Amino acid sequence: MNNEEIAVKVARGESIGRAVDMFEARARVDGTLNFALNAELPNMTFARLLRSPTPHARINSIDVSQAEAMPGVVAVLTAADFDREGAPQRHYGAVIWDQPVVCGSKVRFAGDVVAAVAAETEEIAAAALLAIEVEYEDLPVVAELDDALADDAALVHDRPPPPRDRSYADIKLVGRQGNICTKFQLRKGDLDAGFAMADHIVDTTYESPAVQHVPMEPHVVLASFEGKRLTLISSTQSPYAVRDTVAEMFLLPSSSVRVIVPPLGGGYGAKTYAKFEPVTAALAWKARRPVKLVLSREEEFLSITKHAARIRLRTGVMNDGTLVARDVQVYFNAGAYADISPRLIKNGGYSCVGPYDIPHVRVDSYAVYTNRPPAGAYRGYGVSQAAWAYEQQMDEIAELLGIDPVDLRRRNLLQEGERFATGEVMHGARWTELLERSAAAIGWPENRSVRVDDRRVKGKGIAVILKATITPSTSNASVRLDADGSLQVLTSSVEMGQGAHTVLAQLAAEPLGLPVGAVNVTAPDTQYTPYDQTTSSSRTTRAMGGAVTHAARTVRERLLLLAGELLEVDPHDLVIEDGAVALRGAPDTRVSIADVMYRTRTGSISGDGEIKTVGGLDPETGQGIASDHWHQGAAGAEVEVDLGTGKVYVTHLHTIAYAGRVVNPKLARLQMHGSMFFGMGHALYEEMVFDDGILTNPNLSDYSIVSMGDVPPVIEVEFLEDDGEAHLHGLGETTLPPVIAAIGNAVRAAIGAPVTRLPITPERVLEATTA
Amino acid sequence: MNNEEIAVKVARGESIGRAVDMFEARARVDGTLNFALNAELPNMTFARLLRSPTPHARINSIDVSQAEAMPGVVAVLTAADFDREGAPQRHYGAVIWDQPVVCGSKVRFAGDVVAAVAAETEEIAAAALLAIEVEYEDLPVVAELDDALADDAALVHDRPPPPRDRSYADIKLVGRQGNICTKFQLRKGDLDAGFAMADHIVDTTYESPAVQHVPMEPHVVLASFEGKRLTLISSTQSPYAVRDTVAEMFLLPSSSVRVIVPPLGGGYGAKTYAKFEPVTAALAWKARRPVKLVLSREEEFLSITKHAARIRLRTGVMNDGTLVARDVQVYFNAGAYADISPRLIKNGGYSCVGPYDIPHVRVDSYAVYTNRPPAGAYRGYGVSQAAWAYEQQMDEIAELLGIDPVDLRRRNLLQEGERFATGEVMHGARWTELLERSAAAIGWPENRSVRVDDRRVKGKGIAVILKATITPSTSNASVRLDADGSLQVLTSSVEMGQGAHTVLAQLAAEPLGLPVGAVNVTAPDTQYTPYDQTTSSSRTTRAMGGAVTHAARTVRERLLLLAGELLEVDPHDLVIEDGAVALRGAPDTRVSIADVMYRTRTGSISGDGEIKTVGGLDPETGQGIASDHWHQGAAGAEVEVDLGTGKVYVTHLHTIAYAGRVVNPKLARLQMHGSMFFGMGHALYEEMVFDDGILTNPNLSDYSIVSMGDVPPVIEVEFLEDDGEAHLHGLGETTLPPVIAAIGNAVRAAIGAPVTRLPITPERVLEATTA
Repeated sequence: MNNEEIAVKVARGESIGRAVDMFEARARVDGTLNFALNAELPNMTFARLLRSPTPHARINSIDVSQAEAMPGVVAVLTAADFDREGAPQRHYGAVIWDQPVVCGSKVRFAGDVVAAVAAETEEIAAAALLAIEVEYEDLPVVAELDDALADDAALVHDRPPPPRDRSYADIKLVGRQGNICTKFQLRKGDLDAGFAMADHIVDTTYESPAVQHVPMEPHVVLASFEGKRLTLISSTQSPYAVRDTVAEMFLLPSSSVRVIVPPLGGGYGAKTYAKFEPVTAALAWKARRPVKLVLSREEEFLSITKHAARIRLRTGVMNDGTLVARDVQVYFNAGAYADISPRLIKNGGYSCVGPYDIPHVRVDSYAVYTNRPPAGAYRGYGVSQAAWAYEQQMDEIAELLGIDPVDLRRRNLLQEGERFATGEVMHGARWTELLERSAAAIGWPENRSVRVDDRRVKGKGIAVILKATITPSTSNASVRLDADGSLQVLTSSVEMGQGAHTVLAQLAAEPLGLPVGAVNVTAPDTQYTPYDQTTSSSRTTRAMGGAVTHAARTVRERLLLLAGELLEVDPHDLVIEDGAVALRGAPDTRVSIADVMYRTRTGSISGDGEIKTVGGLDPETGQGIASDHWHQGAAGAEVEVDLGTGKVYVTHLHTIAYAGRVVNPKLARLQMHGSMFFGMGHALYEEMVFDDGILTNPNLSDYSIVSMGDVPPVIEVEFLEDDGEAHLHGLGETTLPPVIAAIGNAVRAAIGAPVTRLPITPERVLEATTA
Repeated sequence: MNNEEIAVKVARGESIGRAVDMFEARARVDGTLNFALNAELPNMTFARLLRSPTPHARINSIDVSQAEAMPGVVAVLTAADFDREGAPQRHYGAVIWDQPVVCGSKVRFAGDVVAAVAAETEEIAAAALLAIEVEYEDLPVVAELDDALADDAALVHDRPPPPRDRSYADIKLVGRQGNICTKFQLRKGDLDAGFAMADHIVDTTYESPAVQHVPMEPHVVLASFEGKRLTLISSTQSPYAVRDTVAEMFLLPSSSVRVIVPPLGGGYGAKTYAKFEPVTAALAWKARRPVKLVLSREEEFLSITKHAARIRLRTGVMNDGTLVARDVQVYFNAGAYADISPRLIKNGGYSCVGPYDIPHVRVDSYAVYTNRPPAGAYRGYGVSQAAWAYEQQMDEIAELLGIDPVDLRRRNLLQEGERFATGEVMHGARWTELLERSAAAIGWPENRSVRVDDRRVKGKGIAVILKATITPSTSNASVRLDADGSLQVLTSSVEMGQGAHTVLAQLAAEPLGLPVGAVNVTAPDTQYTPYDQTTSSSRTTRAMGGAVTHAARTVRERLLLLAGELLEVDPHDLVIEDGAVALRGAPDTRVSIADVMYRTRTGSISGDGEIKTVGGLDPETGQGIASDHWHQGAAGAEVEVDLGTGKVYVTHLHTIAYAGRVVNPKLARLQMHGSMFFGMGHALYEEMVFDDGILTNPNLSDYSIVSMGDVPPVIEVEFLEDDGEAHLHGLGETTLPPVIAAIGNAVRAAIGAPVTRLPITPERVLEATTA
């Protein structure tokens, strides 16, 4: 199926559009849902990981003899085990094979895994860690971008590690040298000519810190070998990617590795691609027993982060506000290992152009290795950092030119049929409408910048963004109708609290006229459920939803065909209602689904659906198809700032997304709420603070996330829906990035000065107001 | 797919026809294979069943208060629990809802389940059973056929229990009255005219006892509720039938019940349809915790048995040996509950006609309720009892007429295109050839009956049989090709040691030119694997094999289509070899499977296959399609009998089956060996001995099965294969029935007298020789 065909039309019916409660919502909170955390395997052992206390050091020796001798210790895994005949590969990685399963010659961040212990209890495993003696020889630490990019910088990796297999060959790994992990570049038009034409050039640099995903449930992996077959029960968002990575690591055929994914207690990108499956599997291989690993909260902080980023935007603009040129330099702090950085810097790079028509563009986007925990996918996927930069700068330009920020944006926003910076034509461009609705919602431009009293000022800000979805992309689904009219949906989409399985059930039920309660959506199990690329990138409702819809329609057609034979009527004249197939307008001519099945000797009726999209960008120019579908969102924020303390209070928050057809309004709202509160956290509170590479706040006392007390008095969520037949859009991330930028712009309006570095802490507000 | 189309042609290739070792053969015997027996669930409890000590009694009271008060006892289930609101149904059954989950008003056999206990340990559960007080009031016991059929017989069931739902409506439950559970009848030609024409009428009655399946692994069930979803891990041969039965029982949609089936340690029919899943699920429902039930060996004897049967054959024959009429009366002792008897008596009834062309036939076949453990499916499925009768009688007729037994059979065997007693036309009729090869193998007719010395005599016997397979029948399979060229076969066929998964892997690998080791065949899991009717009736290689072959061919076609696009050649000119697709005759024009997948953005390629057959017999006349495919087999036996002790020694055993195309010669031989040794056991040793309804030998000391010391010095297995393209036949049971009859005929030839009652114990031999 190509890009055009993916636009699965969704009819308004019984199931779709209904605010069905999320499946298992109660079990999710009362502890009865079987998360991976609850899983047990016969004879299983418990794992703990020994982590490096130092950000960068050579390992001179590891002595595990005392730990191995402790009663109850089953196995201790170190790099030496990978010397053994038949040992798995030492490294893994989604794109680049650079992350050691356990470190061998050196450690690259404070938290890097040096050894792993499997023991009869978690307590014994923890005690055994203390008995392992490691001799480190410290190396110069390069934890910040400037350290890493210095000419004489110490190298995190002595030489560029090898790329992964061919399945990632579409990523041209350009720019790899020194601590540059990879680079993405985009070239459009003639930058010099653009700047030459500009009346003004605005040059600003914006910074975002590393932040934590903080899923309620930590990373959990159970690994168990049965002969040469490996089963993983894992809290992953990417069952198939994990399967393939671990199969490669053990040199096994993919079908020998089985990945089962129970419902997740949150993911937000932290659980994409292989994370702790490799080390757990290696430990199970050594222990010859099943192994369960559960990370502590502190370890979560050391697992994966949102990328800290520094973005310099030089934008050329005409006096009337027309943007004519932009030169972008983005440095993403990738941490010690590449993870998904080579992909993310692409999205984070071209997104810096924003949803604007800018004729002359240059983007250089870098992933930089540093001695920090690795950075990877995070709800918003590079767009938060980009939008923070370009939407702040839009307000700076507006101020410079004396143009209303909404007007300035309106003047430049991409319109239907115009081309984005990547050269692709934009369809369904609704940015102007989204922007205007957010602006209207917060009463723009009334009281955009007002002083309330001696201490307090108020301000309003807006932001509008575009976000790609993973492209190319493939999703498969199977739908099976049983004789009793119940439906099985086989999907590898992960339910992680976002309500994916509820939405897929609604989509499956619709063509068959079944109640949603008659649908069972399976948890992913790569041995059984069809291939899906990943549950991320806000792709599930659209891609898997499309595949499920196709499959359910096939089932419907087959059912009608069989019923038509039995009733001796044209199948096109049949309708499905109340578990039976009936002749339209002659409801007495009917046959129950059970009867159809029985009389045609069909145990069940199955259908399959597949959605795949193609795309990709030229590595030299960044031209091509970046996204087969663009997420579009906007936000409006009103804030009050206490000039005495510097504290920012969000008093009104509005977000809107172009939603196509909303499958489940209740769950859609909740997704938008989630994005809102995540965005508020990034805007105001969240920052992983490093001291020469050592994380100083790896806990939820010192690291603040948004709490109920932070919820603004007015929060509003809107959907821009298509009338009638419409497409399905994902809504998981769209309004996270604009919330950050809108709050930033509101603070700027309130205090009359920009804060260019996230989060907007009281200290930074005071610094800005006193500058 | 109709009967004609099911004949899936199988090409001779790389995988098919190779003696591949059974998958996991070593793990199966070294204890590392995860049988259901090894399964554990978090927080699980252990179940034990309280069984009636008496064969027939009213239950006046049950007091479980002491048991419930015992520390560690989690729940005690009795019939009273089924009075509760929201309780499951009280009864279950494959065809007739006559078996109580736990007994309420009365018990019907010594071993009937009266209560069930779930406790923290098995020991506590066992102790709790002793604390349950039950007051029984004995009722007259009807354990034998004559007791049950007497005019004034006590009734096992006060009135005929209700039939199960519509899915079994094809079984017309005729003849239900008194202790007659159901009846099957067949009417062909004019019986009186036939007998009037006959030169002789031979009238003999043959008896077979109840015997035990003795699977190495007992029945094991784990049941666990999660909200309204029930998961069963069960050692069943029929995952879908169990699912549907238990879903009905709990009034749940089918898709709410999930049945997972690990590899079985043997089944032989004992594990078809629901057995202990209902009681385990009900206990889990009451305990609100997972429950595991493992039967003891003694309990296995009380679970399900081969039917004891009494068969009277009155056969009219001409002087030249032509059979002209047969009147058959069959009484199958069904035990206390119907289980699958209503189906089995049909097969056991018409099979009494044998593979012979008899113009005038009457069959009346009865299932009779008695106070014995229920009888059900057993390898051979009614044909063992029938063949024991009709093949013994053929030798009696031969002796009467002075015709060689092989000649007599040859004269009457069904030939290609002739009609069986059910009216259906026989295709691929190979009985004559099978018979002649078995006869030749044992050197027939040389030394057919000789005295060796004072004490010892030798004799030879042959037998030839036909056996139906379950009809109508449906099997579905999915096959998925991964990018690394590995293959997943999704099937609900149960691997129970017969090698089904190895054979299905061979069939799946063939069209794709893959090594068998690249194929993973999944264990059944009704949540994921497609519908299959049951793993029984020797149907898997043929029905599921056909579905898998179809599915793999679809995958092949899709792969070639994609590769053709990439290579810009006609897909018909492509071949698959070594994990790549290449142009025939131009092997440099090639693309690897991984490349095809990657370049066409296909995560995997899937295909589905379905095989369904139709059939059924008229309830009045028994005319119609009894089997969409007939198994054909023969055996030849040479025995030596010690006239002093009466002991029979089998010195030479030969079996042959019409095999179509043998997929795996090694596994096929092992199946034939299994049938041989089962047949020897039934012929010579095995008998469940009842004393007024009490089983006196429920253990492997008092109940003898064949041991290695019994293996004849010469054992031979032969397959009648089709040349070139051929069909797939099942081989799991075909040669069990003729082995029993051939040994019986050999003994008759040796000692010069018939033993008409199985097993042929030394006592019965001495009785026959001294009569």
